[in-house]
Amino acid sequence: MKPSLTFWYEFASTYSWLAAERIEALAAAANVEVVWRPFLLGPIFAAQGWASSPFNLYPAKGRNMWRDMERHCALMGLPPVKCPDPFPQNSLLAARMATALPPAARARFSCAVYRAQFTQGRSIADRGVMAEILGDIVGTPQEALATAESPETKAALRHTTEQAQSLGIYGAPSFTAGSGELFWGNDRLEQALGWAQKEAAERRGP
Amino acid sequence: MKPSLTFWYEFASTYSWLAAERIEALAAAANVEVVWRPFLLGPIFAAQGWASSPFNLYPAKGRNMWRDMERHCALMGLPPVKCPDPFPQNSLLAARMATALPPAARARFSCAVYRAQFTQGRSIADRGVMAEILGDIVGTPQEALATAESPETKAALRHTTEQAQSLGIYGAPSFTAGSGELFWGNDRLEQALGWAQKEAAERRGP
Repeated sequence: MKPSLTFWYEFASTYSWLAAERIEALAAAANVEVVWRPFLLGPIFAAQGWASSPFNLYPAKGRNMWRDMERHCALMGLPPVKCPDPFPQNSLLAARMATALPPAARARFSCAVYRAQFTQGRSIADRGVMAEILGDIVGTPQEALATAESPETKAALRHTTEQAQSLGIYGAPSFTAGSGELFWGNDRLEQALGWAQKEAAERRGP
Repeated sequence: MKPSLTFWYEFASTYSWLAAERIEALAAAANVEVVWRPFLLGPIFAAQGWASSPFNLYPAKGRNMWRDMERHCALMGLPPVKCPDPFPQNSLLAARMATALPPAARARFSCAVYRAQFTQGRSIADRGVMAEILGDIVGTPQEALATAESPETKAALRHTTEQAQSLGIYGAPSFTAGSGELFWGNDRLEQALGWAQKEAAERRGP
């Protein structure tokens, strides 16, 4: 069985964006399959008493994060980062849309949402903006939008978020291997891929 | 002038330990001079309303940090990490001692303190433990201990901590280049060294 890594991401998260931009190429080089799982960080932050992003709650941390993003975008050859207003954006609609999409379309949709938000400063809570991005991916945005807002999709996203929390996830992006081994942050992507390979090799045996 | 990078570290910080283990070899390879500056994170955390380490305040984050440390120690060929009791340790005495030492002795002393704390679980708030470590470095621990607790050293450490805060430092380890460019976290050490080289090249001109 091919090694697999689950990619837990939040649409409002800047470092989730960086991981989304990097993960498919790195995973392909490592022969690891990626499972894209959008979830909501809001309920997890709320459970630990945060009413907003730590980047807003702790201004020095926030200033350095945006500077760090500028440096990363330059190093990665991405367009300059732009802070959406407000930050963080309400990511509920985006997460529902990504949940409703077939897995094969999720990566491309998610990267498009991140680029709209973090390089153009567009609002991902805006239905018009989101329908436009969705239309580029699926061709029939109205139908996809209806699926995104169905009771089944809402329940699926709630379930994903609960599962993230039960795996010990407290931030985004996070990565989990099959055993549940948890890695937090874009900076751990390479280690997480290596771990997934190691687990697969152990399953195959000597 | 040789490129220079200031290394801001806190003795109670696990990721400061990892950076301390790595920085001299990486800096030598990059031809960058390292200025070791121990400071206290306690007052900075207190100023943002934290009465303890975020790794204690947010248990899921803390659990993953210790697991991450285990993985890093294995990857770096370090002895297994051991959590001192209590965590975080009171680092005031260690920081004063490091402040009082001549710069050339600071790196070796600091690494010895980290190893005692994080691989043997020894208390760095204990004067006996600290005098023993200091004795291995300077030969005359009693004299060095007296210097560490002089009004001049206490004032110097307070000044360093205030300077860290005024540079926007909110966690440890951090790294600053001559311009004040700030990098947070062991994961940014390589980028920080590259930035220090770039600034030195710009100073030299074309």
